[in-house]
Amino acid sequence: MGHIEKMLRAHPEPAGSDGDTALACIKACFECAEVCTVCADACLAEPDMQHLVTCIRLNLDCADICAVTGRLFARPSPRDAETLQHQLEACARSCRSCGDECQKHAAQMAHCRICAEVCVRCAEACERMIGALVP
Amino acid sequence: MGHIEKMLRAHPEPAGSDGDTALACIKACFECAEVCTVCADACLAEPDMQHLVTCIRLNLDCADICAVTGRLFARPSPRDAETLQHQLEACARSCRSCGDECQKHAAQMAHCRICAEVCVRCAEACERMIGALVP
Amino acid sequence: MGHIEKMLRAHPEPAGSDGDTALACIKACFECAEVCTVCADACLAEPDMQHLVTCIRLNLDCADICAVTGRLFARPSPRDAETLQHQLEACARSCRSCGDECQKHAAQMAHCRICAEVCVRCAEACERMIGALVP
Amino acid sequence: MGHIEKMLRAHPEPAGSDGDTALACIKACFECAEVCTVCADACLAEPDMQHLVTCIRLNLDCADICAVTGRLFARPSPRDAETLQHQLEACARSCRSCGDECQKHAAQMAHCRICAEVCVRCAEACERMIGALVP
Repeated sequence: MGHIEKMLRAHPEPAGSDGDTALACIKACFECAEVCTVCADACLAEPDMQHLVTCIRLNLDCADICAVTGRLFARPSPRDAETLQHQLEACARSCRSCGDECQKHAAQMAHCRICAEVCVRCAEACERMIGALVP
Repeated sequence: MGHIEKMLRAHPEPAGSDGDTALACIKACFECAEVCTVCADACLAEPDMQHLVTCIRLNLDCADICAVTGRLFARPSPRDAETLQHQLEACARSCRSCGDECQKHAAQMAHCRICAEVCVRCAEACERMIGALVP
Repeated sequence: MGHIEKMLRAHPEPAGSDGDTALACIKACFECAEVCTVCADACLAEPDMQHLVTCIRLNLDCADICAVTGRLFARPSPRDAETLQHQLEACARSCRSCGDECQKHAAQMAHCRICAEVCVRCAEACERMIGALVP
Repeated sequence: MGHIEKMLRAHPEPAGSDGDTALACIKACFECAEVCTVCADACLAEPDMQHLVTCIRLNLDCADICAVTGRLFARPSPRDAETLQHQLEACARSCRSCGDECQKHAAQMAHCRICAEVCVRCAEACERMIGALVP
């Protein structure tokens, strides 16, 4: 069991029936934030990076949005559900558009290929979490 | 003219017809992020802070959401419009719920009164920006 | 191999001889940022949280400092070494003081016990990274 | 009087004799975080941006470091002084190296010229704050 999982179990306000979905979403968001941060830096270091500008921009936005979304869900106490839902929609959408852009360069650059996979997985985790919030 | 405004004018991709709306939104988001950060710390320093727990939680979330929303709009190059729209909706909603909670304590604590005002103004700025994005 | 590790290997500017130390530091910083975020929220949810105010404050600071430190090292391209060194010192020190405070409550609250462990490990990872930067 | 100033005055733990120095530091850090964020995006939008890669990297780091430093000082309750000192040193140094790099392009690009000025001012504000912390 990872540390985040242990922490959420030790939290005095236990997670509801959507605890597993939330845990998966938190992990996916933090992972995607980290991977997009590396991908932006890796794109900037490519010899021919002029055609990667859109990718860098989307990576930077996606890293910021995923980091804040992960952070919100790492605070499991009761919160404003509507805010969380909009934030998940922003995060899912950001991961989709970043993932689509990275996918275009997946054959040429391993960092974009890995980033595209992680973005898609994060989008799916956010979409499942939206489904859990809005019954 | 403030530094953000000068920077946006010096940006090689000039803002479109919604430039003033975007500038107002950026300023409001950064200001609200700062004010909510102080308010959370001020609530934690109140002698009887047990009844301020909800306020602290909403302040922390609102500070994070406003900071990332301000950051996204401080990057004026072309981006994914749908992501920006969802992020603005998250930010407007977060400001409304934080502002409502702070308003409950406005008569007792000046920091909550000021924070409530700043939150409402930021919500309005985000809502106007949503209107500019979605014609 | 985790995603961060794969991403760093796919980066066009390969890590130097301190690559393993840097990877451990990145992982420890992101983990500590997440765990401190949960711990602050868990402390706020404790029935008798008035005596946890110092712990909450240090958790919030440590979460922010670890998040930015992890982010800087997740950008492996050449950077200003002196900036990185000061940032590592801030992070190591923040983890030490947050870990010390959490340790005081470790017997009563599992979230503080886990957080104390994670903070110490992150401090050690940062200190090793300082040693790698400053030969 | 700006909102941050009003908030700090409304805080239940009044600032000490270094209150004005701290306020100037907070404002400078948040302003520099915003300006560096715009500058990174503006550099990415320049037609010949290959030679601006170092500038973009330093802008991104400086934006993150300034944002977290501003945030720490926007929480005026008692904290770990040694952590704050290291963080200020990281911030001052980051502003110096980003400002030096931006200055190289100041004649060609107004955004780099403004950013260089703002970075120097933030470095000075952080250095004064270090002087106030360490008597």
